[in-house]
Amino acid sequence: MTGDMEGHSGWKLRHIFNRKVKQADDVSSKATDDIDFDLNIINTEKPTDYAQLETFHRAVYPVMLLAQCFSLMPLTNIWQLNPRRMRFKFKSLQMLVTIVFMVVTSVLLVSMLKHLFKIGITAKNFVGPVFFTFVECACILFIDLARKWPALMRHWTRLELIFNKPPYEMLPTNLMQRVRLPAVIIIICSIIEHSLYQASAIVNFEQRIIICAEAQNTTADTSFDNYILHNYEYVFQVMPYHRITAVYILLVNGTCTFIWNYMDLFIMMVSKGLAYRFEQISMRIRKLEHEEHISESTFIEIREHYVRMCELLERVDNALSSIILLSCVNNLYFVCCQLLNIFNKLRWPISYVYFWYSTLYLVARTACVFLTAATINDESRSALGVLRRVSTRNWCVEVERLIFQMSTQTVALSGKKFYFLTRRLLFGMAGTIVTYELVLLQFDEPNRRKGLLPLCG
Amino acid sequence: MTGDMEGHSGWKLRHIFNRKVKQADDVSSKATDDIDFDLNIINTEKPTDYAQLETFHRAVYPVMLLAQCFSLMPLTNIWQLNPRRMRFKFKSLQMLVTIVFMVVTSVLLVSMLKHLFKIGITAKNFVGPVFFTFVECACILFIDLARKWPALMRHWTRLELIFNKPPYEMLPTNLMQRVRLPAVIIIICSIIEHSLYQASAIVNFEQRIIICAEAQNTTADTSFDNYILHNYEYVFQVMPYHRITAVYILLVNGTCTFIWNYMDLFIMMVSKGLAYRFEQISMRIRKLEHEEHISESTFIEIREHYVRMCELLERVDNALSSIILLSCVNNLYFVCCQLLNIFNKLRWPISYVYFWYSTLYLVARTACVFLTAATINDESRSALGVLRRVSTRNWCVEVERLIFQMSTQTVALSGKKFYFLTRRLLFGMAGTIVTYELVLLQFDEPNRRKGLLPLCG
Amino acid sequence: MTGDMEGHSGWKLRHIFNRKVKQADDVSSKATDDIDFDLNIINTEKPTDYAQLETFHRAVYPVMLLAQCFSLMPLTNIWQLNPRRMRFKFKSLQMLVTIVFMVVTSVLLVSMLKHLFKIGITAKNFVGPVFFTFVECACILFIDLARKWPALMRHWTRLELIFNKPPYEMLPTNLMQRVRLPAVIIIICSIIEHSLYQASAIVNFEQRIIICAEAQNTTADTSFDNYILHNYEYVFQVMPYHRITAVYILLVNGTCTFIWNYMDLFIMMVSKGLAYRFEQISMRIRKLEHEEHISESTFIEIREHYVRMCELLERVDNALSSIILLSCVNNLYFVCCQLLNIFNKLRWPISYVYFWYSTLYLVARTACVFLTAATINDESRSALGVLRRVSTRNWCVEVERLIFQMSTQTVALSGKKFYFLTRRLLFGMAGTIVTYELVLLQFDEPNRRKGLLPLCG
Amino acid sequence: MTGDMEGHSGWKLRHIFNRKVKQADDVSSKATDDIDFDLNIINTEKPTDYAQLETFHRAVYPVMLLAQCFSLMPLTNIWQLNPRRMRFKFKSLQMLVTIVFMVVTSVLLVSMLKHLFKIGITAKNFVGPVFFTFVECACILFIDLARKWPALMRHWTRLELIFNKPPYEMLPTNLMQRVRLPAVIIIICSIIEHSLYQASAIVNFEQRIIICAEAQNTTADTSFDNYILHNYEYVFQVMPYHRITAVYILLVNGTCTFIWNYMDLFIMMVSKGLAYRFEQISMRIRKLEHEEHISESTFIEIREHYVRMCELLERVDNALSSIILLSCVNNLYFVCCQLLNIFNKLRWPISYVYFWYSTLYLVARTACVFLTAATINDESRSALGVLRRVSTRNWCVEVERLIFQMSTQTVALSGKKFYFLTRRLLFGMAGTIVTYELVLLQFDEPNRRKGLLPLCG
Repeated sequence: MTGDMEGHSGWKLRHIFNRKVKQADDVSSKATDDIDFDLNIINTEKPTDYAQLETFHRAVYPVMLLAQCFSLMPLTNIWQLNPRRMRFKFKSLQMLVTIVFMVVTSVLLVSMLKHLFKIGITAKNFVGPVFFTFVECACILFIDLARKWPALMRHWTRLELIFNKPPYEMLPTNLMQRVRLPAVIIIICSIIEHSLYQASAIVNFEQRIIICAEAQNTTADTSFDNYILHNYEYVFQVMPYHRITAVYILLVNGTCTFIWNYMDLFIMMVSKGLAYRFEQISMRIRKLEHEEHISESTFIEIREHYVRMCELLERVDNALSSIILLSCVNNLYFVCCQLLNIFNKLRWPISYVYFWYSTLYLVARTACVFLTAATINDESRSALGVLRRVSTRNWCVEVERLIFQMSTQTVALSGKKFYFLTRRLLFGMAGTIVTYELVLLQFDEPNRRKGLLPLCG
Repeated sequence: MTGDMEGHSGWKLRHIFNRKVKQADDVSSKATDDIDFDLNIINTEKPTDYAQLETFHRAVYPVMLLAQCFSLMPLTNIWQLNPRRMRFKFKSLQMLVTIVFMVVTSVLLVSMLKHLFKIGITAKNFVGPVFFTFVECACILFIDLARKWPALMRHWTRLELIFNKPPYEMLPTNLMQRVRLPAVIIIICSIIEHSLYQASAIVNFEQRIIICAEAQNTTADTSFDNYILHNYEYVFQVMPYHRITAVYILLVNGTCTFIWNYMDLFIMMVSKGLAYRFEQISMRIRKLEHEEHISESTFIEIREHYVRMCELLERVDNALSSIILLSCVNNLYFVCCQLLNIFNKLRWPISYVYFWYSTLYLVARTACVFLTAATINDESRSALGVLRRVSTRNWCVEVERLIFQMSTQTVALSGKKFYFLTRRLLFGMAGTIVTYELVLLQFDEPNRRKGLLPLCG
Repeated sequence: MTGDMEGHSGWKLRHIFNRKVKQADDVSSKATDDIDFDLNIINTEKPTDYAQLETFHRAVYPVMLLAQCFSLMPLTNIWQLNPRRMRFKFKSLQMLVTIVFMVVTSVLLVSMLKHLFKIGITAKNFVGPVFFTFVECACILFIDLARKWPALMRHWTRLELIFNKPPYEMLPTNLMQRVRLPAVIIIICSIIEHSLYQASAIVNFEQRIIICAEAQNTTADTSFDNYILHNYEYVFQVMPYHRITAVYILLVNGTCTFIWNYMDLFIMMVSKGLAYRFEQISMRIRKLEHEEHISESTFIEIREHYVRMCELLERVDNALSSIILLSCVNNLYFVCCQLLNIFNKLRWPISYVYFWYSTLYLVARTACVFLTAATINDESRSALGVLRRVSTRNWCVEVERLIFQMSTQTVALSGKKFYFLTRRLLFGMAGTIVTYELVLLQFDEPNRRKGLLPLCG
Repeated sequence: MTGDMEGHSGWKLRHIFNRKVKQADDVSSKATDDIDFDLNIINTEKPTDYAQLETFHRAVYPVMLLAQCFSLMPLTNIWQLNPRRMRFKFKSLQMLVTIVFMVVTSVLLVSMLKHLFKIGITAKNFVGPVFFTFVECACILFIDLARKWPALMRHWTRLELIFNKPPYEMLPTNLMQRVRLPAVIIIICSIIEHSLYQASAIVNFEQRIIICAEAQNTTADTSFDNYILHNYEYVFQVMPYHRITAVYILLVNGTCTFIWNYMDLFIMMVSKGLAYRFEQISMRIRKLEHEEHISESTFIEIREHYVRMCELLERVDNALSSIILLSCVNNLYFVCCQLLNIFNKLRWPISYVYFWYSTLYLVARTACVFLTAATINDESRSALGVLRRVSTRNWCVEVERLIFQMSTQTVALSGKKFYFLTRRLLFGMAGTIVTYELVLLQFDEPNRRKGLLPLCG
């Protein structure tokens, strides 16, 4: 099926070659590319048919294409199933989109900061600039990731060929479903969240205009222009109002919300992709349980695949852990902010709906990112039970090494190696947030009793 | 004594068969059931006499029968000693009781929430709805557990046959005593707690009626109807008063209290059941200490039993850990609530008696659940000392594997794998609660000085 | 030198015998006693000369004799170097002293509680009852320890015989110096602390009497009787004043202070005794470093001694860990109390001297207990470095086992297994206390500004 | 190239000799010195040419020379590349400088404390004395380190000879660049910080004098003398004003700032030096990856070098960990202080510039120290991946031992063994500080609203 399936001597050659390639890979991704590509042509008559393989790239590329529409990860040829065709180029349409978006966001951010310095920064109105800063950082980190992505995907796909052949089996829910399901859920939920946000903002604006107009005996102007002028007044302190600018502001806001959600989604998809392979290894080990005699070479092979998956994880972690760190800080900051406002009184039912939906969605999304990432760790250890039951007859040094490695190594994505995304981390974080919330609730009561500020003036 | 004691060839056959059975077990519990049952009839002349065996099911079934009276765990044939006869059926009397109870509780919960939204939710009057929500969740989780329980008990009982034969010995305090003692204690304590609660509520009601009647020169009505109308007024905002409803409310309240206690009790009983077997393994290892020469096959057997116990624990944990998580959250929430009120002034001595009794009982019960669950972890490691003293002569790879497994594996019940119930966890939690309490005491003093609110009006 | 030094066959016999003895030891200490004693007479012509041995009992008994004067650890024959003569008897002079002291303290405690309930309990005046409660608990725990002490000391001494013979060497600072030095320091420091407390109390009393008398134009009565009546007024609300009672109160107060210090001292002495032996093992291993060829039997012996020390530690921990838990809770509670008052204004210089001396002494003592107990853990692992350098030639399974055990086992005293006394624990606790203190300092400022309350009235 | 490269028999002799030397080393550094020096002359014709070697001493000595100008680490002959010539003498110019500096600082500290006792100590004006106390402690600890430094450097250099020969290779960024780069950065940043501090102080002083003079219709005296008199008035309450004293005060202040920065810098340089060697070992292991057959002797050698590096680390840690503890406490204290003032209003732009620069610099420096120290831990484990991939053919007990050691040993600098400087520690500390800051922000708002105090009066 693939180039790896030729005769023994060829395989050996390729094995050694592969190693050299992998080395070169780290230094210069471009060179590797060509070599690898040529190799494919020379060595195998029929090239690998990626459309029939269950690869992570194939599962993830539609979501990445969508992200490119929102100016993330400027890569060319992302829609090709063969990851060798993917390129990162500074001079490309995608890069241009990204840069334009970042410039526009910067303008928004600067005008907002200027506005805030004028009216005084507080813990509560600081949320806006923080949101835009996180989005800008995410953009930069995704550009950096895009640079490493083609080489990483080639490495990943090459490794995935192993898991597309027996004795490995496809799992009941296949890779594509696993990767795409969270994408669909997150995108739908975030669209609802953004709609509710807009609805709440519009209702707030309209009601205020109408009620205040009545109180002051003036006519209420609830037009689109007036809405934008009121809600984004800080922008129009920097530049004159124009309806195109207004539409543009709404677009940028939507894009920012998408990016803000995509960070978490991307971590979840990568986690699913990695956990799937570890689950396949566990499944293979579990099937050995009922065999009378297992040869050492089987364990040698399993251990090699396990170690190579750990290596891949390591490499993915190196590329991704800045984004993970950003996503964690981002999530914890916004969860704390929402929890701080949990007992605030609001004026309109739609505001309550929006507030509670967004809070629950945020908490659920945060928990999901952690839990999905933690499955890598869970799956990597899930075969330990079976390995412990290997009988004395089948016991060999390779099983011992595999058990030792599984027991002592923390196989998990990390936030720049400061912490590993495991289930126990989530428990610790939840504990800290709950304690913090308890202390807040205890002492914030006087503030909460104050009630609503006057609507007009 | 049991079907496992036949000739070698038969045993081998059964061994292989057993494995297949166990596999099937996980997929479809119904099929296994029949196969296993038939097997028993075909292979052994005299069927297993469960009345003479020390099984967990035999120890625990009277308590479970009692729980069924309070609408928990809808299983049929639970009083039969042979766990193969136990069934979970959606169409059964037990299921009906459970559903009726849940519906009634939901009515109470909804009417209470409606009442609270009217008068405004605070941290203190939020305790009521939380209590009912925890109870409802517990009901649902116990139904879910009931679905898995028959298959689990068959697996468990099958494994227990091993520990009912030499070289394993019954321990001084046998399994039945260990399992039933906490049940008796918890039930008695919770009856006292509930009686004190009712007594306190009645005294509060009567005194208030009498004193306020005197102050306002009206006649005091301290009848049962008036008591219920006052104490559960929120219910009668939803439906008209009737004495049958009144009695029903008291019944539901009592049942909720039982369920609230039973969650913890159930975890304790299961922990006792598992810890007992690990203690038997430890005891067997300890007896080997004085033997000159120990064959490797002995260690192979011990390790196999140890690994199978770990497997059982894993399976129990999968079934039970939602309940464990709920119980922990529940206990911590109520401990924090009680500690918050610890310096409140109360009007009547009986209120002080109730408050302090319930606080101490709650803390003691929480500590007991953690400590009892932690004994599994303690017992699973208790033989390490003896294994470390195994002389060079008797040293073999099996001892090494056993020591390695005991040293590196966390054998314990968990809360959805977020945390493991060990002694060190309790220490961490106690530390957190004490710190929280210290901070509260420091800053809550102004509130505490206010004293009592006026009684009437 | 000892009974262990006879011919090989005799040793073997004794070895087997010993094991049986040790077993019996756990069940019934009385039986062992006699067996062991007889054995000594039968097997060896010259009995063990304990005066020439470096045993923990010999090092510690003078301090324990002193403690008996303060009604702690009611054991008879404690001054005999042979620990086999030591007995715990319920009917003994020592037991009588203990019981009388406990009764008197209870009277003080009850009268104090009665007084507090009258004037209202606050976090600050609650210190008194807590102090007496801790002392009473300590008394009870020391009685419980005394019951286990004779058997424990026999086990300990028997094991110490090994370390009094080559190849083990006495360390530069010998056991006696190590054990007795902290005793001398703690006793001197606690005498100074108690004197300062009395001095501060007397100055406070006298100045107040004199100044208030001047203000109210009455005569000042600064007699001893009046001092006692003022300072311990709560006692004389329960019983009439008599000078003998007054003296007795002072005596009981002094004794309580001693017991309060002795708890910590005892833990330190036991830790020194255990750490010394681990240090000897490390020293022996370190000497092997330069040897060309080391036989496996050497490592077998070392590992056996190491394991036996771990066993002893386990047994000591079982007996002592209630006292350790009490001591930790006690120290943390009082450190927190002192830190709470750190910015209070005081009226007289002697009060400042007393406050700062007692605070620093308390913190230093707490740190010392933790650090001394942590040396056991440090010493037990200190030979790891040398063992890791064992060359391939000398490498054997025994070295591997020893390294594995040292790496994975937590060899340390514990507080009921909830936590282990290691250096890292101290770091965690210090962190928690500092955070707590920082929060307090931040919010306690308004209280601190209030200044002193009026002196008279 | 070095004295280690002679014939086999000589090497063996030297090997044994070396060990003895190392032992003696610990006891008396002076004796070792001479022996080692002689040995070098006798055994090798051409002495080691330190100018061509990449040693830590050679990399670090210019920075240490600079530090000596600021009275730190009184060692003689520090500029000699051969560390054997370095001496610690109590009677030396460097020691004199140190002592003079410490005496002068003490005078400042005492006069400041006297001043504070007069005006009342608060959490905010306590920063000054704490700063000087930390600096004095640092001086004493560096003297203590200087005593151990010559012997330590000889040991270190001797070990470094191994890593200057094949098969070890120099890394892309060599040791000298790595060690000196942070030095240059820290020195430049600290000069900027100190200049901004002076600028801010001068602007504050001048503006206040001018504005207040206007308000009170007096002439403004903004001379140097008046500046010093105002800013350091506490000194001149103890001694009369003189311009030389004024200059001296400024000098001492500058020196203190240097020392305060040098503590952190020194830890970073040592960490770089140690991490470099671990990286070389990892690099060597990584090169083995592609070899078909690796002899056990290679692994024996690698493990020996690894163990010797661990030993060196242990020794460096013993010498340095007091300074590490001081540096951590110092950094955390000042970070907390700065964060406390983060929302304070300031009067002049330069004050804002200084405040934010110093805060960010402090946080960045603290993070850098932790991260740099953590690289030792990272590098020591970085070869684990490769070792796990060693094929069954090349697998031997030495690889197993190396993997076990790397997996279980915490190879890192520590703060007196209370905590180890790893990436996870930084995460924990950051978490604690952020929580603390969140609580502060929540409750400090009323204070922050107060605004600025009146300028004159």
